Amino acid sequence: MSLDKLSSEVIERELSGLPGWTLREDGAAISRSFRFRNFSQAFGFMAECALVAERMNHHPEWFNVYSRVDVTLTTHDAGGVTEKDVKLARAMNRAAGRGD
Amino acid sequence: MSLDKLSSEVIERELSGLPGWTLREDGAAISRSFRFRNFSQAFGFMAECALVAERMNHHPEWFNVYSRVDVTLTTHDAGGVTEKDVKLARAMNRAAGRGD
Repeated sequence: MSLDKLSSEVIERELSGLPGWTLREDGAAISRSFRFRNFSQAFGFMAECALVAERMNHHPEWFNVYSRVDVTLTTHDAGGVTEKDVKLARAMNRAAGRGD
Repeated sequence: MSLDKLSSEVIERELSGLPGWTLREDGAAISRSFRFRNFSQAFGFMAECALVAERMNHHPEWFNVYSRVDVTLTTHDAGGVTEKDVKLARAMNRAAGRGD
């Protein structure tokens, strides 16, 4: 998978197919806040995403408090958003059951 | 378990037995940053703590990026730090294998 940084135009196009995700103001990361019914659901989501992330060798920055999970994705090596981030975001939406 | 807010004196005494934990400046929470070898170790720690937290019905606020896990514990109902936070912090230190 390419590690080339995506242009804002390409990111915006990708985000149109990624409900809930937005481009950070500095353009270097995408983020989304997920809400669940309770902690158990939220952590179940995190566990599924952790396995995907480990398999991709591409990991999120994320914050959890009770039923909320705030995620930021960026590719440090590329200094911005790459296809890896888009792919992980897509997998996270699927894991949250709201990906369509 | 009591939900009474602990005094600063009691918290400081408890923290002396909790390596790595510090009282937040406003006195209303305790926090610690944990470091691991990699994401897998960090998330394994989080999974173990999640089970403890769920069993206690007392949940952390935490942020993870790769091998780092930053934890904040507070008891919202009490508006500060209670025995529940101390107990969860102790369990987290044990889970991280650095509790003694």
